[in-house]
Amino acid sequence: MSGFVSLVGAGPGSPDLLSLRAVDRLQRADLVLYDALVDPAVLEHAEGAQRFYVGKRAGRHSVRQETINALLVRHASRGRRVVRLKCGDPFVLGRGGEEALALRKASIPFEVVPGITSAISAPAMVGVPVTHRGQASGFVVLTGHSADGGDAVLSSLPPNSTTVVILMGFARRAAIAARLVDAGWSAETSCALVESATTAHQRSWFGALRELAAAPFADAEGPVTLVVGPTVGLGVDLGFAPATPPSLESLGAHP
Amino acid sequence: MSGFVSLVGAGPGSPDLLSLRAVDRLQRADLVLYDALVDPAVLEHAEGAQRFYVGKRAGRHSVRQETINALLVRHASRGRRVVRLKCGDPFVLGRGGEEALALRKASIPFEVVPGITSAISAPAMVGVPVTHRGQASGFVVLTGHSADGGDAVLSSLPPNSTTVVILMGFARRAAIAARLVDAGWSAETSCALVESATTAHQRSWFGALRELAAAPFADAEGPVTLVVGPTVGLGVDLGFAPATPPSLESLGAHP
Repeated sequence: MSGFVSLVGAGPGSPDLLSLRAVDRLQRADLVLYDALVDPAVLEHAEGAQRFYVGKRAGRHSVRQETINALLVRHASRGRRVVRLKCGDPFVLGRGGEEALALRKASIPFEVVPGITSAISAPAMVGVPVTHRGQASGFVVLTGHSADGGDAVLSSLPPNSTTVVILMGFARRAAIAARLVDAGWSAETSCALVESATTAHQRSWFGALRELAAAPFADAEGPVTLVVGPTVGLGVDLGFAPATPPSLESLGAHP
Repeated sequence: MSGFVSLVGAGPGSPDLLSLRAVDRLQRADLVLYDALVDPAVLEHAEGAQRFYVGKRAGRHSVRQETINALLVRHASRGRRVVRLKCGDPFVLGRGGEEALALRKASIPFEVVPGITSAISAPAMVGVPVTHRGQASGFVVLTGHSADGGDAVLSSLPPNSTTVVILMGFARRAAIAARLVDAGWSAETSCALVESATTAHQRSWFGALRELAAAPFADAEGPVTLVVGPTVGLGVDLGFAPATPPSLESLGAHP
């Protein structure tokens, strides 16, 4: 008898942004392999299960992806119900596709339980819709983590045509701003940073592209979402930011 | 005493893809204004509330947006807890930003409860991750519904650089495919259609851009998500599509 693997999205951070289906899978799990940043309250749904931390931290892999794949296959082939619990959505920058391929190769039945991604919910928490009539009829989500192709997309987008959301891009924020400005975006284009969206530690900053390099959160411990484009102004209109964003001077920055 | 409005995402279709926070807001609501395509099982969480259908259908607005905004303001200013229940995520092509602005203008306190969007979950249901290492480090979500800016984005994207997801684009599928091919995408690029993702009525089709115009689902009653790009091949590799997509001939099409 074969087991089963559920690749489950835990949502952006707050434990009540878990889906009912995710709760069901956790309750019925024999084993949960979970990432960094999963709230302990989420794991409590899996009281009856063994729980292993397989998280990664900023570039340093504490458990290699190949090892995680092998653990999923090994435990499911022993007939166990395994939940692979991932931050956000399992198929958004979460290597869920690689896990699915490993399971398919080993003929292990699996499913994907989608989650709420911070790419959309982090901006929403500061009043920024990724789409808005007359401002953006679409949006782009990119990783800032590595160059692979993302930079070419940034350079090609018609200025102000879409909302641009960058995950894991805080360290490269200066390069990202420079690339957009080089591609014709105004240096005054609104942008916002949201750290640890939906959690008790959420912090946000609103400013312009020209200020992004000097933006705060250099001490950020949680994930930071960057959002750029005309819709960011709605966050200000909706009262989620001071009407006047902090100036470089007020931040004590010396660019 | 003022009421409160929650702009709540009901998720892509299946009632168990609702978040715990959404369930909580429905349980405590006095009034729920809900869209088309919301499953009756979702509304059952709001047993104690009045429930009004304010849905729209394919271009024909049964209730005007201005009327919905006015209803939200009127009922909340009478001290009621109002839930505005929207398909998917309230800030993805759902006019949630307009509702938020109307509430802000009327000084009604509100919140956004994010939902699982079909832009990501519909592809996931057929094994297609919107990002995958070495294939796509990002994705683009556009509406196919109107031209506003979306066509310029389609034409500017470097071919195969990202996964392209188009919501409400079924009717314009031929124009979308032509635009991508004109921009340098191969006519053999994989694409997929998913109708009514996550529901009991889910149907899907896999093919190439050159076949998209003649793709089935002309009788589609549910929402259709179109996904284009290299990651679509993973849906095939993962066993969600026949290894050989149906040919134009087998579909009985005469292009």
